[in-house]
Amino acid sequence: MKKVINYPYINKRNNTNKSKKTRFSFSNRGMSLEKDLKLTNEYYLEVGKACIHKKPTPIQIVNVDYPNRQSAKIIEAYYTEPSTTDYNGIYQGYYIDFEAKETKSKTSFPLSSIHKHQLQHLEIIIKQKGISFVIIRFVSYNEDYLIQSEKLIKFINENKRKSVPYQWIKENGYIIPNKYTPRVDYLEIINKILNI
Amino acid sequence: MKKVINYPYINKRNNTNKSKKTRFSFSNRGMSLEKDLKLTNEYYLEVGKACIHKKPTPIQIVNVDYPNRQSAKIIEAYYTEPSTTDYNGIYQGYYIDFEAKETKSKTSFPLSSIHKHQLQHLEIIIKQKGISFVIIRFVSYNEDYLIQSEKLIKFINENKRKSVPYQWIKENGYIIPNKYTPRVDYLEIINKILNI
Repeated sequence: MKKVINYPYINKRNNTNKSKKTRFSFSNRGMSLEKDLKLTNEYYLEVGKACIHKKPTPIQIVNVDYPNRQSAKIIEAYYTEPSTTDYNGIYQGYYIDFEAKETKSKTSFPLSSIHKHQLQHLEIIIKQKGISFVIIRFVSYNEDYLIQSEKLIKFINENKRKSVPYQWIKENGYIIPNKYTPRVDYLEIINKILNI
Repeated sequence: MKKVINYPYINKRNNTNKSKKTRFSFSNRGMSLEKDLKLTNEYYLEVGKACIHKKPTPIQIVNVDYPNRQSAKIIEAYYTEPSTTDYNGIYQGYYIDFEAKETKSKTSFPLSSIHKHQLQHLEIIIKQKGISFVIIRFVSYNEDYLIQSEKLIKFINENKRKSVPYQWIKENGYIIPNKYTPRVDYLEIINKILNI
């Protein structure tokens, strides 16, 4: 009899496939940041704390097949570059807007993983008096950081680097507590920043 | 020689095809509400008034073909029901959230065109102290109305109707001025409501 054992590394690979649900998890390890944020936002919604959603992936639809009147099957489509960040919503009257990224690097966060349009979008949100930030997960350390857009953009403008050093993030960002529920309690950091 | 003439009714039909751009327009007539709102939001963004975007259409991706490392072609995907409204963003610190619908009816707006989840979402936004509303275009009259979510939800709860009468919308909503730029200046109505 063939038995599939969910070793941590297999588990981790399964998690990159968004449509499959992992059957076993070793505490918080191996869970993707996207999945953790999904659970976190569902929790915030359920308890009435906030209403923050991930935007659907932007796709350009080229061809749709209609086998019958009820169903439509998209048979040709392409991923397109996002013009905004992935997450936005409202937290007790405050507009919230952020991007979330994982990195396997132990030394720095590569800026190539954030699109130019997304950085421009964060700048616009600052001007519009919204709360905007980036959540970066360092997979190797199992650490999540919240970095305010203002600080990140200032760093990018002042240093012509292609990545943000881990040490800089540690000093200028806020580490997000790793809990069971909610998993990535980033609003706790927002409370600290806003002093509420 | 075959010449294609863009009669108003042809023009109108073309506009339902989002990927095609109409070459002629008879003032504002025939333009879809979605297209008009796209231009309006682009204008707001350009002048730094607000940052409001339409969310991408939610799609469940089933199968992706990778002909080479650079490109990914989605070959099987399906439309899924949205859990939020189509539009959200920020206007000078205020969280904005709305749904936009067109109707060809001259007498009422059919509630079937708004998903149950979307109405629940509007209720959540009210509780979160956001500004939420519905924009309804009566195509026959070339009139756009902004109806605050609070009023619409109250009407739905008090009347067990399947549609909202045109007359009720006329009396309880705000007519949005039809301009050249921005086309559907809904933030002017928000200014009135907020008294700013």
